[in-house]
Amino acid sequence: MCRWAAYLGAPIFLEDIVSRPAHSLIRQSQGATRCQTPVNADGFGIAWYGERPEPGLYRDVMPAWSDPNLRSLVGQVRSGLFMAHVRASTGTATSRNNCHPFAVGRWSFLHNGQFGGYDGFRRHADVLISDEFYPHRKGATDSEALFLIALGEGLDHDPRAAMERAIGKLGALARQMGEAPHVRAACALSDGRNLYALRHASDDLAPSLYYRWSETRRGWAVVSEPLETDEADWREVPPGSFCTFAGDRVQIQDFCPDRLSAAA
Amino acid sequence: MCRWAAYLGAPIFLEDIVSRPAHSLIRQSQGATRCQTPVNADGFGIAWYGERPEPGLYRDVMPAWSDPNLRSLVGQVRSGLFMAHVRASTGTATSRNNCHPFAVGRWSFLHNGQFGGYDGFRRHADVLISDEFYPHRKGATDSEALFLIALGEGLDHDPRAAMERAIGKLGALARQMGEAPHVRAACALSDGRNLYALRHASDDLAPSLYYRWSETRRGWAVVSEPLETDEADWREVPPGSFCTFAGDRVQIQDFCPDRLSAAA
Amino acid sequence: MCRWAAYLGAPIFLEDIVSRPAHSLIRQSQGATRCQTPVNADGFGIAWYGERPEPGLYRDVMPAWSDPNLRSLVGQVRSGLFMAHVRASTGTATSRNNCHPFAVGRWSFLHNGQFGGYDGFRRHADVLISDEFYPHRKGATDSEALFLIALGEGLDHDPRAAMERAIGKLGALARQMGEAPHVRAACALSDGRNLYALRHASDDLAPSLYYRWSETRRGWAVVSEPLETDEADWREVPPGSFCTFAGDRVQIQDFCPDRLSAAA
Amino acid sequence: MCRWAAYLGAPIFLEDIVSRPAHSLIRQSQGATRCQTPVNADGFGIAWYGERPEPGLYRDVMPAWSDPNLRSLVGQVRSGLFMAHVRASTGTATSRNNCHPFAVGRWSFLHNGQFGGYDGFRRHADVLISDEFYPHRKGATDSEALFLIALGEGLDHDPRAAMERAIGKLGALARQMGEAPHVRAACALSDGRNLYALRHASDDLAPSLYYRWSETRRGWAVVSEPLETDEADWREVPPGSFCTFAGDRVQIQDFCPDRLSAAA
Repeated sequence: MCRWAAYLGAPIFLEDIVSRPAHSLIRQSQGATRCQTPVNADGFGIAWYGERPEPGLYRDVMPAWSDPNLRSLVGQVRSGLFMAHVRASTGTATSRNNCHPFAVGRWSFLHNGQFGGYDGFRRHADVLISDEFYPHRKGATDSEALFLIALGEGLDHDPRAAMERAIGKLGALARQMGEAPHVRAACALSDGRNLYALRHASDDLAPSLYYRWSETRRGWAVVSEPLETDEADWREVPPGSFCTFAGDRVQIQDFCPDRLSAAA
Repeated sequence: MCRWAAYLGAPIFLEDIVSRPAHSLIRQSQGATRCQTPVNADGFGIAWYGERPEPGLYRDVMPAWSDPNLRSLVGQVRSGLFMAHVRASTGTATSRNNCHPFAVGRWSFLHNGQFGGYDGFRRHADVLISDEFYPHRKGATDSEALFLIALGEGLDHDPRAAMERAIGKLGALARQMGEAPHVRAACALSDGRNLYALRHASDDLAPSLYYRWSETRRGWAVVSEPLETDEADWREVPPGSFCTFAGDRVQIQDFCPDRLSAAA
Repeated sequence: MCRWAAYLGAPIFLEDIVSRPAHSLIRQSQGATRCQTPVNADGFGIAWYGERPEPGLYRDVMPAWSDPNLRSLVGQVRSGLFMAHVRASTGTATSRNNCHPFAVGRWSFLHNGQFGGYDGFRRHADVLISDEFYPHRKGATDSEALFLIALGEGLDHDPRAAMERAIGKLGALARQMGEAPHVRAACALSDGRNLYALRHASDDLAPSLYYRWSETRRGWAVVSEPLETDEADWREVPPGSFCTFAGDRVQIQDFCPDRLSAAA
Repeated sequence: MCRWAAYLGAPIFLEDIVSRPAHSLIRQSQGATRCQTPVNADGFGIAWYGERPEPGLYRDVMPAWSDPNLRSLVGQVRSGLFMAHVRASTGTATSRNNCHPFAVGRWSFLHNGQFGGYDGFRRHADVLISDEFYPHRKGATDSEALFLIALGEGLDHDPRAAMERAIGKLGALARQMGEAPHVRAACALSDGRNLYALRHASDDLAPSLYYRWSETRRGWAVVSEPLETDEADWREVPPGSFCTFAGDRVQIQDFCPDRLSAAA
C-alpha cells in the first residue's frame, strides 16, 4: 500500500508536507508510528507547479528518507500546488518510470490502489490507451495506464467523467479477465489550477482519503492518511466520491465508474 | 549507436571480452580510439549462462566504465556463453528496463539498430506481443518488443523463422506508419545452448557484425566491432544473414523478413 | 541495526543464504516476521570468493529486495566462502561506498555495531589508518575505518590480535572523545581461506552472533540472527569471543581489545 | 577535465545556463562540438540559492543528459545565484559524495583541477581539515578536502586569504609527497551573496576561466568555457587571479597561495 499527500493553497515549502510534520509522508514511509504500518521503501515522487503550466517532476527508486537530493529540494522549493507519493512495490523490480506521480503536459496524477489481476490483462489495458498518449507510456503499472486512458477520455474537458470512464473500462477488464477485488482507487490529479481527488472501490475496502482546510496556511491538504495525529479536523471522503478543490472551496460529487456500463 | 559482443566456447572470464582487450566493449563505450566514435554512456548489460538453464542478468543505467560492481562481476564470473551490451540512448531517459540484454526463460536477446518512427506506432507494436509474453514487457524500447514478438512467433522451435516473422511484422508497421530507414538490425540471441546472430536492414546500411574463431580459447566471438585491431581474421557477416554458432561450427543462412509478405 | 550472514563450506548458491531460507537475509531486511524488527532498506552488499584470491564485491544503495541484479546474481553464483549484509542507516545519506562488506586485496570485512559518538572523533579515527591503506578509504563509516586500521595492525599475520588492537584504539577514542556505549561489534572477516567472526561490546549489549554446522551442506553458517526458526541447533557466540572457522573445524578464543591498554 | 558554470544576477531559470545555450553545460558534457573535447559522463551537480541562506544541492552519478529529474528541476527553478558542474572522473568509481558542488552551511564550492599525486598523500590532506568541519567529509576527493580546509582557514571572514592558505597547504603537500603538476585549480564559491572565482596553477597550464556580463539578463556568467560561441565578449581571467562578483561589479585581485610560504 502506498501513501500520498497533495496540497492546494498559499505557497508553502514542500517540506511542510513531505518531511516536517510529525506524521509526514517520509515518516509514514518509514512505518515508524504503528506496527501494522508497512514500509514504503520502493521509490517516491513529487510533482509541483511553479511558474510554468507544466509541473516539475522528481522521482527516484530509493527510499525517500535516504535521498539527500529530495531533502534539499523540498527545503528549497515553495509551491501552491503539489503532490507527493511514497511507494511500496509488491515484489516487482523498482524503476523510476513506475514511480508516481506521472505527468503529461500540464496534468499530474497519482494513484493508490489496484486493478485485480492486472498482469493477466495488461496487454488489453494498454490497447485502451489512445495513440496520442501512447508515447507517454514509459513503465508497466496499472496506475500509469489509468492516467493515460483518462487523458484520452477527456481529462481536459471533464475530469470526473474522464476518470469514471477510465476506471470503468479498466474495472470491466478486471471483471472479465482479472480477479477480485476488481477496483480499488484513491487518486489525486491536477491540471495546474485545481486539485482533484477521488475514492472508489468495487468492494467495501476503498483506500482511505482525507482532507483538511488549514486556516493558518490558507490551503487544502488532501492525503491518504492524516499528517498530524493531534489534528481533530481531518474529514474522511466517503467511497464513491470525486472532490474538486478550487481556491478555498471544495465540491464533492458522487463518482460512479459503472454509470455507463449500467446504462448500456 | 550501441555496441555489443557475445561469446560461445570454452568458459572464460567475462572480463576477457568486456574489459580487458585493447578494444574491449568498455573501451569502445568510452569512444577513446577514434574521433568519430560516439560515447555509449547510457547503460549497459550482461547476460551469461552458468549452471542453470536461465541466464544471469546484470544491467544498470550508469556508464559501464564507472560501475565497480560490473568490474568485480566480470573479473569473477566465468562462462562459456554470454553477451554484453553498451547503450547510447537517443535523448530519452535511461531506465534499467530499457537496457539490453533482455531475458525471458532460458532466452537472452540484444539488438543494435532501430525501426524507423517507432514512437509513432509503438501501441501497434505492443499489440503484436502475445498475451503469454506481455507480462515480460517492462520498458518501452522497440528492441524489447522485437524480442517478445519473436518469442510468440516460435523462437523455441525455429529461431531464424521467428526472427524473420517478428522483424517482418515490425518492419511492415514502420513502412505503414513510421519513417525511413524502416529496419536496421544486428541482433544476438541465445537459448543457453547455441548462439545466434543476424544482420539485416531495409536499406544499404545494416549495422556491422563480425565474428572470429579463437583457436587459443576454443571459442567464437561475435561482435558489433572487432575487439582487437591487430587481429586480421575477423570475418564480416553480410547483410541479410542469420548465423548459428553451435560448438565449434557456424552455419550462415540467408535472412529474409519480407519472405512472407512477398509471398502473400 | 544491520543484519548479516556468512558461509564457509562446500560451494552453494548465494541465494541459499541470501534469499531462499524462511528467515533469509532478504526476508530479515524486510522486517516481515516480527513487529519489533526494523527494516534494513539502506543498501546491501555481498563479498564472495571464487577462482581468484580477491573476493567479488557487489553493493548497492537500494533495498536488497527490490534489486533484480542481486536476485539474478545470487541465483547464478556458487561459492564456498561468502558474506552478505543488509544495512539500516541511521538517517545519514546512503552511498555505495558506505555499504558493507568492504574489501581490500584478498580480505573482506563486515561489521554490525558502532563506536559511540564516532562523528565527533572521526578525524582522529582516520589518522589511525596507515598511509598504506588510506587510499582504500572511500566512505565515511566507522566500519570501514575499523577494517583499514586492522589491516595496518597486521590482519594478515594475526587476525585476532589485529582486530583487538584496532577495536582497542577506536574504543579508546570513543571513551576519550565520544559517548557511551563506546563499543559494540559483531564482525565477520575473511582472507579467502578461513572465516573469522567476533563478538564484543564495552557494555552488556553486544550485537548477537550465531553459528551452525550443516551436515547436509558440509558447511558453516555464521549469522547475526538464525536463518531458519525451526532449526534448534544454532549456537550463540558469547560476548568477548573470536571465532576461527577453518574447513569443518571451529576454534573459539577470547577477544579482549583492552588487553593492551590494561597492560600499559 | 570537468566543466562548470556559475551565475549571479537577476533570477533566471537554471536551464538558461545548464541546458539551453548552444554550448550549454549539458551539451559540453556530451563533448558534441569538438573532437578533442572529452565526455563528462561521471556525474553532475547543481547548487542554487533561493529563499534560504543555505543553497539547494542536487547531485547524481549518471550523465547529466540522461537524468529526467535534472531536466525537470532546471526548467522549474529560478535563481539569482547558482553554480553547476559536470564531472569526468579519471577511472575511479563514481559516487554522489564525490560530485561537485559541495555545500556546508551557506557556502557552496566547486573545483576543476587537481593536486598532483593526491592519492599518495590523502591522509595528510585529511588531517588539515579541522575537527569542526570534518563531519562534512563524505567522499574522497581532493576538491572536497580543499573546500573543508578553506572553511577552517576562515572562508567566512576573508575568502581570498582562506583559499590562498588552503591551496598553499595542499600545494605544499603535493610538492613534498606528490608529483608534478602540483596545483591546478579553477574554482567557484559562494556564500549566498557574492560569487567568487579563482584561477591558479603551479605551472603554465591553469584550467581556463571566463566571465561575461549580460546586459539583457543583468547578470554575470562565470564559466570554464564560453557558453555561446558567437558571443565575442567573454573575458578570460588571467592565471593567479581571484574574482569577486558582487551585484553588477567585479573586482579582480591577484591570488598567490605561496605568499605565506614565500614569506616564511
